[in-house]
Amino acid sequence: MALDETWFSEACEECGTAFSLKIKEKLHEQQTEFQKLEIYDTTAFGKLMVLDGFIMLTTRDNFLYHEMMSHPALFTAPHPRRVLIIGGGDCGTLREVLKHDSVELAQQIDIDEAVTRASEKYFPELCESNNDPRAELKFIDGIKWVAEAEAESYDVIIIDSTDPVGPAKGLFTEAFYRNCYRALSEGGVLVQQSESPLVHHRLLREIHEAMNGAGYSDVKTLPFPQPVYPSGWWSCTLAVKNDRATNFRERDSANKSFATRYYNIDIHRGALATPPMFIDEIGIR
Amino acid sequence: MALDETWFSEACEECGTAFSLKIKEKLHEQQTEFQKLEIYDTTAFGKLMVLDGFIMLTTRDNFLYHEMMSHPALFTAPHPRRVLIIGGGDCGTLREVLKHDSVELAQQIDIDEAVTRASEKYFPELCESNNDPRAELKFIDGIKWVAEAEAESYDVIIIDSTDPVGPAKGLFTEAFYRNCYRALSEGGVLVQQSESPLVHHRLLREIHEAMNGAGYSDVKTLPFPQPVYPSGWWSCTLAVKNDRATNFRERDSANKSFATRYYNIDIHRGALATPPMFIDEIGIR
Repeated sequence: MALDETWFSEACEECGTAFSLKIKEKLHEQQTEFQKLEIYDTTAFGKLMVLDGFIMLTTRDNFLYHEMMSHPALFTAPHPRRVLIIGGGDCGTLREVLKHDSVELAQQIDIDEAVTRASEKYFPELCESNNDPRAELKFIDGIKWVAEAEAESYDVIIIDSTDPVGPAKGLFTEAFYRNCYRALSEGGVLVQQSESPLVHHRLLREIHEAMNGAGYSDVKTLPFPQPVYPSGWWSCTLAVKNDRATNFRERDSANKSFATRYYNIDIHRGALATPPMFIDEIGIR
Repeated sequence: MALDETWFSEACEECGTAFSLKIKEKLHEQQTEFQKLEIYDTTAFGKLMVLDGFIMLTTRDNFLYHEMMSHPALFTAPHPRRVLIIGGGDCGTLREVLKHDSVELAQQIDIDEAVTRASEKYFPELCESNNDPRAELKFIDGIKWVAEAEAESYDVIIIDSTDPVGPAKGLFTEAFYRNCYRALSEGGVLVQQSESPLVHHRLLREIHEAMNGAGYSDVKTLPFPQPVYPSGWWSCTLAVKNDRATNFRERDSANKSFATRYYNIDIHRGALATPPMFIDEIGIR
């Protein structure tokens, strides 16, 4: 069957796959200073945000991504007080970060304010912590921000970026990871969304090489399901400053004071498992 | 964008999603006695098998499904000698089962011989163990076979079926699971492919209810990635006769004598993790 315009389809040419969501109506379309932003209402996945034709998130399944981009990193850092989020303009990662009582400052640095304004309107549940006194939202260049950050000024840095094309390209480089390393405290954790373990092997290798090259003592890819991204099998990659990525605060994770839908201590342990193909076929762990 | 006929698209109306693979050419089309069987060559996923319009498997990603449908169940049974596969006509599960040295008999009962003949031609790597002297392929009705099976004659029963519509509907019922229970030895394991934890909540609940109703002492759903199935997040559900599904032969799994691409002991442990949403939203564990 062919899929007509009642579907929003994102084709991944290099993957040879496409993923589509059935659309009720387009709610918003805007050419921002940086990208084309669209919001749709879908029949079964709630609201859908699209940037430059790429699916960013839906109401229904974003919890998987946002929980896995935040909680493993925060429970790996020994005492996460100061957290920096680069990208993440939809504010879903910020919300998860602020669930941690130890956090005193959570800065979200997204270059495009329009994304956050759209999220406030169409994904209000993701923005419910934006007025938390510990939250700080800045709409500036994250690469420059990290380059100029004070040494050891963050305990966790989360790269919640779009794909490594366009403005996000600089977020996948050794130079950027080295600046993050400098800005991280001892035992600090960098986490980067790192695409699909089924179809983005070269990128995953490059991320590992760049993180290792930047001086981190341990680099580990954690896979998780993310239905609306290519292949539905996604990952984040943790890089730790002078500690092991497998060494997380298990007791604190087991006794966490907040609710989650996907993450818990067993899921965290499970995500640290390395499928043989990671080593044998991708060349990562 | 619309997707034209250069893509094979499967729409899941109830999920509001569609998944598509870019096609090079159609290699085979046949109305079998039971269903419409198509084989395509794709640009990036190798060969694709389709039954009645539903994607069954591709060369590229079937290892995820086949490994997770077999190894957790076989490493949970205390000493799997006799294994029954209902469905599984592509022979990929059979191949994985026969990797276990303890297995003396692996019977594959698929109602449609045409599926196996097509698999031999287009997925020869999945059929490489079909001539193993321990393998037995029968093309008959699996529901009847199990109803007439001797008590305690199998150690593992694998329901490697299509979706619960058409001929596979009877494979998701309490009556069928009860016949499996009777046919299983003490500590024996039934495993059923159980669809998506994101979009098939009602079916997952029904499977658990039916398995519990049939007398199994423990029922547990193990999620895993499966890119070409709706949502890309899939699952199998284990039901154990008088033992715990979490109690598997860890030492044997750690020391397994054969290669896998996704499964290993850590993945097995990880798949036994229960995301909070399983309990809070689906009502399963």
